[in-house]
Amino acid sequence: MITVEEARARLFELVSPLPVEEVPLAQGAGRVLARDVTARRDQPPFAASAMDGYAVKADEVQLHAMFKVIGESAAGHRFDGAVGAGQAVRIFTGAPMPEGADFVVIQENVDRRGDLITIAEEPGGNSNVRPAGVDFRDGSTIAAPRVLAAADIALLAAMNVDSVPVVRRPVVALISTGDELVMPGEDPGPDQIIASNAFGLKALAEQAGAEVRMLPIARDTEASIRAAFELAEGADLVVTIGGASVGDHDLVGKVAGDLGMERSFYKVLMRPGKPLMAGRMGEAAMLGLPGNPVSAMVCGWVFLLPMLRAMLGLGKDAPQTRETTLAADVAANGPREHYMRARVEDGRLTAFTDQDSSLLSVLAAANALLVRPPNDPARGAGDTVRYIPI
Amino acid sequence: MITVEEARARLFELVSPLPVEEVPLAQGAGRVLARDVTARRDQPPFAASAMDGYAVKADEVQLHAMFKVIGESAAGHRFDGAVGAGQAVRIFTGAPMPEGADFVVIQENVDRRGDLITIAEEPGGNSNVRPAGVDFRDGSTIAAPRVLAAADIALLAAMNVDSVPVVRRPVVALISTGDELVMPGEDPGPDQIIASNAFGLKALAEQAGAEVRMLPIARDTEASIRAAFELAEGADLVVTIGGASVGDHDLVGKVAGDLGMERSFYKVLMRPGKPLMAGRMGEAAMLGLPGNPVSAMVCGWVFLLPMLRAMLGLGKDAPQTRETTLAADVAANGPREHYMRARVEDGRLTAFTDQDSSLLSVLAAANALLVRPPNDPARGAGDTVRYIPI
Repeated sequence: MITVEEARARLFELVSPLPVEEVPLAQGAGRVLARDVTARRDQPPFAASAMDGYAVKADEVQLHAMFKVIGESAAGHRFDGAVGAGQAVRIFTGAPMPEGADFVVIQENVDRRGDLITIAEEPGGNSNVRPAGVDFRDGSTIAAPRVLAAADIALLAAMNVDSVPVVRRPVVALISTGDELVMPGEDPGPDQIIASNAFGLKALAEQAGAEVRMLPIARDTEASIRAAFELAEGADLVVTIGGASVGDHDLVGKVAGDLGMERSFYKVLMRPGKPLMAGRMGEAAMLGLPGNPVSAMVCGWVFLLPMLRAMLGLGKDAPQTRETTLAADVAANGPREHYMRARVEDGRLTAFTDQDSSLLSVLAAANALLVRPPNDPARGAGDTVRYIPI
Repeated sequence: MITVEEARARLFELVSPLPVEEVPLAQGAGRVLARDVTARRDQPPFAASAMDGYAVKADEVQLHAMFKVIGESAAGHRFDGAVGAGQAVRIFTGAPMPEGADFVVIQENVDRRGDLITIAEEPGGNSNVRPAGVDFRDGSTIAAPRVLAAADIALLAAMNVDSVPVVRRPVVALISTGDELVMPGEDPGPDQIIASNAFGLKALAEQAGAEVRMLPIARDTEASIRAAFELAEGADLVVTIGGASVGDHDLVGKVAGDLGMERSFYKVLMRPGKPLMAGRMGEAAMLGLPGNPVSAMVCGWVFLLPMLRAMLGLGKDAPQTRETTLAADVAANGPREHYMRARVEDGRLTAFTDQDSSLLSVLAAANALLVRPPNDPARGAGDTVRYIPI
């Protein structure tokens, strides 16, 4: 038996960051920036007014001062002349400051009659001018790796970057195995259940930025499992669900080995989700998850998502946890790390009473996995604990 | 001037939940469930073994008891006979319990020789049997509305639901306005800047579940703005960026009015982002955002996303805030609600020094909007504050 941490370290050895591809900026949100990107201009490219008002010389600004308005500077339409002594140019937010002017008196502080303005209210000491390049300079960079958020996309656009180098999405092939499985919408026989894990794991992997191919269910025969592996050709990561235990009906490991996989089989000191299979199969990494619904999903958060992040160049890290306080007592934990289905509400966490690994209804009601270290003693309401948000 | 809360309440009057559409379950993640969905079967559909082991009669279970193995029950392949006194059936995790048996002795606790097994270790009191329907029953429901998470998708699959009724995605048309704007990748003139807001808002709206149509930039002429509004035909929400201020160059409101929009113009007591326009234009709601990059994005979080949630049937609520403590002092706030760009790290928040509404570089470095109520007094390090995660 190995710890969760050790298992994850071995899984990380199977993967490395994927190649770079270029996508249009409008499709860049949520993707991982693969290389530093450099601004192609200053922003603003010129000294600009921060307000609607009148551009004048700063050293002429005082209460009751009077100016003659000689023109207008609007966004996109600069005033071509220069502002001389006693002169003002009508100016709008974002418009280029005219030559000779270095102060904008905001319009609320001005009385205008015809072409004449008078500063009627205390103009204050703020020039209301944004210097050229105050936001960023030509050559400023956005550093990779970085998951591109909405504000990054806006910033990249402002930098005049119209396409971005991003890490290619990992292609994940999902193979459910088992004679007992049918697809949703089919008419299951009396001994059959619905293949639910592949659907949950597909959603999980796609949220993490993967492209998922859901393959047909493999039956419990060598031929059927072999056929599924062949359909997985071209994937970066092949994930099997079920058949990874040590039961007599676990053929997945055998077939993977026959196909040349350098196969490792781990018993991991965790609940739920003890059995795990992993290896490399040609160009692809392979991850074999247990078939119990909740075990498969928990292994998704604990192993699959960190592998995907590593493939996306985001580092080889454990899932991020958050701190909270317990709303109710939890019993002492055994020797295996326990990921308890739990609910965080109003900043306090309650673990569900029934932690059986078959209960998808409990998992769907949960929004957190409470992480219990091996041999963690009993904890009481008010104690500080850590959880993985799900 | 009206408060942010009042402005949002008026915007909510413009929108209502969109119609329902049916999508395949595999495409349901992240969508909003529109109607309660009912399970079409019990799960498990039969009493099932929770372990690999031997199914026997519970009242015969004791240390050193001996049984004859008369067959096997595997997932998908039930044992057809009945288990009698002194008999056992080899059984695997998830397999149907055979008739007559109500206890599974786990294989680790058994010595097997040929067809005979002996209970060699203390078997414990847990039957290792999952009763039929312990996860959910035929007729159990998942209640709408609900943003479908990965675990929900797994649960729906297990319920044999192959397509789900979801709220149609809001179609948002984004119109940037201004003679100063060019698209990223173009060669801007000396007075021009890049249309960055539409790209940031597109990313924001898509994350919230909208389908976004980015329309060509409208120039500062009535004809150009009118043409843009015509291209927005069919959208549920038309968002204009820029031209919503009170400057002489703000034609958007005029054109929208000419096109029959019952137009409201709000000055909102907020920083950044004071001017806001809104109304209904035929079947569509219309929202006019300010043109300053950071103002437009902040109004995206404060107004646009709540409107989209309302259209998705998720209620008419303010953006969710979180509590944290200040890492550094912040000055007293003025009369307008202030959304300060800030960074939360290690559970403590630091507001950026420069809060100018033109600084996209600051917004991109932020991961939080610190919410300062009107006239909030100066706050010191360690004080509790609320923020919107971005």
